[in-house]
This record gives sequence, structure tokens and C-alpha cells, in this order.
Amino acid sequence: VSRPSAASRHDAVPPLPRRVHLVGAGPGPADLLTLRAARLLGQAELVVHDQLVTEDVLALASPRAELVPAGRRQGRVVASHEEVVDLLVAAARAGRRTVRLKGGDPVVLGRGGEEALDLAARGVACELVPGITSAVAAPELAGIPVTHRGVAPGFLVLTAQRAPGSSASGPDGADWALAARFSGTVVVLMGATRLAELCGRLQALGRSGTTPAALVSQAGLPGQRVLAAPLAQLPERALAEHLPTPAVLVIGDVVGIPAEVERRLGDALVAASV
Amino acid sequence: VSRPSAASRHDAVPPLPRRVHLVGAGPGPADLLTLRAARLLGQAELVVHDQLVTEDVLALASPRAELVPAGRRQGRVVASHEEVVDLLVAAARAGRRTVRLKGGDPVVLGRGGEEALDLAARGVACELVPGITSAVAAPELAGIPVTHRGVAPGFLVLTAQRAPGSSASGPDGADWALAARFSGTVVVLMGATRLAELCGRLQALGRSGTTPAALVSQAGLPGQRVLAAPLAQLPERALAEHLPTPAVLVIGDVVGIPAEVERRLGDALVAASV
Repeated sequence: VSRPSAASRHDAVPPLPRRVHLVGAGPGPADLLTLRAARLLGQAELVVHDQLVTEDVLALASPRAELVPAGRRQGRVVASHEEVVDLLVAAARAGRRTVRLKGGDPVVLGRGGEEALDLAARGVACELVPGITSAVAAPELAGIPVTHRGVAPGFLVLTAQRAPGSSASGPDGADWALAARFSGTVVVLMGATRLAELCGRLQALGRSGTTPAALVSQAGLPGQRVLAAPLAQLPERALAEHLPTPAVLVIGDVVGIPAEVERRLGDALVAASV
Repeated sequence: VSRPSAASRHDAVPPLPRRVHLVGAGPGPADLLTLRAARLLGQAELVVHDQLVTEDVLALASPRAELVPAGRRQGRVVASHEEVVDLLVAAARAGRRTVRLKGGDPVVLGRGGEEALDLAARGVACELVPGITSAVAAPELAGIPVTHRGVAPGFLVLTAQRAPGSSASGPDGADWALAARFSGTVVVLMGATRLAELCGRLQALGRSGTTPAALVSQAGLPGQRVLAAPLAQLPERALAEHLPTPAVLVIGDVVGIPAEVERRLGDALVAASV
């Protein structure tokens, strides 16, 4: 460890903490990054990025930046949480301009808080830079508003995934029971591979099988696909149509709004052309 | 009505719909807009913006753009929903590049879906451009992650405000009961002026008065202030400290994370300087 400086030892003033920017990359399209995120990427010397971050987003990084993939890819760990923290600590201590880049928003099921705590324990401060979260943007890019007056007064975001080795990390049964009864929109991230189990469970807990639901796959990207179906039928339909991941599950009456928009638009255009 | 063109009448092909971009302005700082939003603002000929949108964000608009305020300001209606729709329809029909700019994200309690439906009924299509929502970013900019492994497996977003004249538009009692029991983070938007009522209601419904809670005021702006206190004490503390609106209420154990980050960082820096 090369720190602290002699000055800080003599004055008993703790040295300034080294800093890492923990940045949200948004749902995929490069122009859905924030201006702040784009600036930080353009100035970075090291970018440690999750697998979900698209090539288009990585292209915003400085050509001189070292790009290091981290996280999981199809279940395989490219770099563990501990390895990522080691890398970030070493880079921050060396004074490199360092960006930790995560898909969506860093604190929406992105384990940003964990990295902030582990970096802090080693004397490295973390600045959180919000990103567009798929929890809101995936439905929105498919025309589905997560809230809508008189339809959905709020929204609930859960993950279908329990972190490996941690029984207490996922939503518990009580949370799914709440999701089954909530009058607003329910958004489930990382649920595409467990769709039948999730939709079945929500129905068993009281949510009607006729509740409108949708799966939004690759939101905002050229391959975006939206499958809308009643909750009871969604898993079978999704299986038949082979929707690629990542996909966001949306449950609630707001799912019907894009069809209503299309209907009104069609009627207005027909009326105008008669 | 000046449309449709003669060509579309003869061919029985409906004319292409006119288009308005419904754009999220994020929580306030100009560099928390997306690149897409900044580009659209820079190209716009008309920007109809909510009152919450900051001057710094409006400065991103083309100098040639006409800026029209809309929505409410301190309860007073500057332009009604109907007036806004009329304005947008007229601009779109005139072929003007038109941006409807809303604070945060346009579909998170921003009535974006309503405008999309009303525009569609008049033959104007709406393209939704996601923005950083304060529901996630306000806590995040204060260092509070809305999800955290083993602490908050998801989050619930509600508004404290019922739209005037609509009894069915706000969360109902059952939703607040869910909020009282949810194991994840509860975020309440537009709740600052009804804090005592909200915190009292959640406690009456079973949430412990010792639950960590925080009010984040003017998130991300130079005047940002964060007040953390147990749920039972928050309203009195907020009253005493005169936190300015807009403010976001966050309830759950994640509120304790920034203090833990600071503690670890302090310990690490002290250890390094010994």
C-alpha cells in the first residue's frame, strides 16, 4: 500500500479517499446513457463492465480506456465480485480514472450497494451515477406506462432471481403475495427463464389468470420484441415464440394501453382520410 | 383540419401519423438527461415543459426553440392538460419538431400515458423517451440503493397525491397496507406535504416506527438535502428543518447504507494513516 502521504500522517488529516464512478449504462441503446455517464466513459482510463452492457455503449469509452468484462455470462463467472473489487481498488489507488459500468441502473438489482460497501472498507469512495432502469424503460419503450391515472397508481419491482448461495436475498413468499394483490403494475426482472413458475405462483396467490401481462425482450434494441398475453397464457406463448433474454415481465392493466393507443390512432387516421 | 393529403385519399392509404416526442428530463441536473433527450431538445422547434424541469435542462434546447411552460406550479395551473394536448396537436400538424418535456420519467406518475392516449385520439403519435426517475435516482444520489442483497429484494413506488377530481387515481388503502408489509424499499413521490399523515398511516398499518426512513430534497441539485430518521420521527424532524420540495420519501433498511459506507470509509482511511 503506497498511501497515505507523509503530509497526511504528520497533520493527522486522513487522506482524501480514492474514487470510483459506479455508472448505469441504461437498457442497451447507447443514446439512452446520461450525458454524465457518457462524459465519464469518454474520460475513463479503466472501464469494468457487466456482460449486459452493449457494444454500442462501450464504444462511448475513450479509445485509450482499458475495457474489462466482469460479472456473469450465461451462468459462467467472468470475474467474481471479489476480483472486481480488487481490480477497482488497485486502479483507484493507482489514481486511474475508473468507471464501473453496469446495465440499467447500478442500484436496481445491480448489486451497486454491495460494491460501494466493499470498496469503502478498502478506502475507496464510490460515486453513484444513475442510469435508465429497464424496470421502467423496457415497458415504456414498448409503449406501456408503468403508472397510469385510474389504472396503476404505482409500481412494484421484484427480481425473480435469488443470488446464488444466499437464501435471504430474493423476495420471499410474502412479497410475491403482495405482488399478487397490488393494484398497480408489477415488474419482474430476470424472470424470463422462470416464467411458468412465476406466473403460476402469482395465480395461486390470487392474481387472476386473465390479468394482462407482457414480456418485453431486448427493449430498445433492434431486436426488441413484445409479447402480450393474459397471465395464464404468457409462459406457453413465450416458450412457443422463443423470446430472447434479457426480458422484462410486466403485469397489470397498463399492458393494454399500447393497443388502445394504436386503436385510437388508427381511428383518427381513418377518420381524417375519409 | 388541413390533412389528409390528396394522395392518401386517392390511394386509400392512411397518412403517416404526426409525431411528438414525450421526453423525460430526469431529476434536475442537466447532465442526467439521456443523450437522446439532449439531441431531441437541441433539434426541437417547440418544447412544452413541466414546471419541475430546471433552467439548466431547458438550456439544452435549441436557441431557436419556443419554450412553453405547462402543468402546475404551486397548485396553480399554468396550462391545463387539454390546452397542452391542443398545443401539441397543432404543432405536430404544422410539422414542427415538438418535444413534450416532463420531469423524471414521463410514465412514472407523469401522466405520459394519458397524453399519449389523448394525442392518439387526434391522430398524433407519441414516442416515449425514458428519463431518470427520481423514484430511484433521488435515493441513489443520496447514496441509498433502492435494492440491496439481503436487505431489499425489490422496491415499491407510490404517489402520495391523488389527482384532483379523481377519487380512483391514487393508491387505495389496500396498497398502503401492502406498503406497510413489503420487505423491500418503499418510495413515495409527492409525499413531502403530507408526511405526517403518510408516516402515521404506515405505522397504523403495521410498519414499525423504528423503520429507517429518509427524505431526499432537491436530489442531485446544489441544494440537495437528506434527512434520515426513524419513520416515527421523520415528520417532526422534516418540519423543524424546513426541507424544500420536491422531496422523495424512502422507507426501509437501505436508508442505513450511506452511514455504513461512511463508517467503513472512515475506518479504512484512519487505518491507512496510522
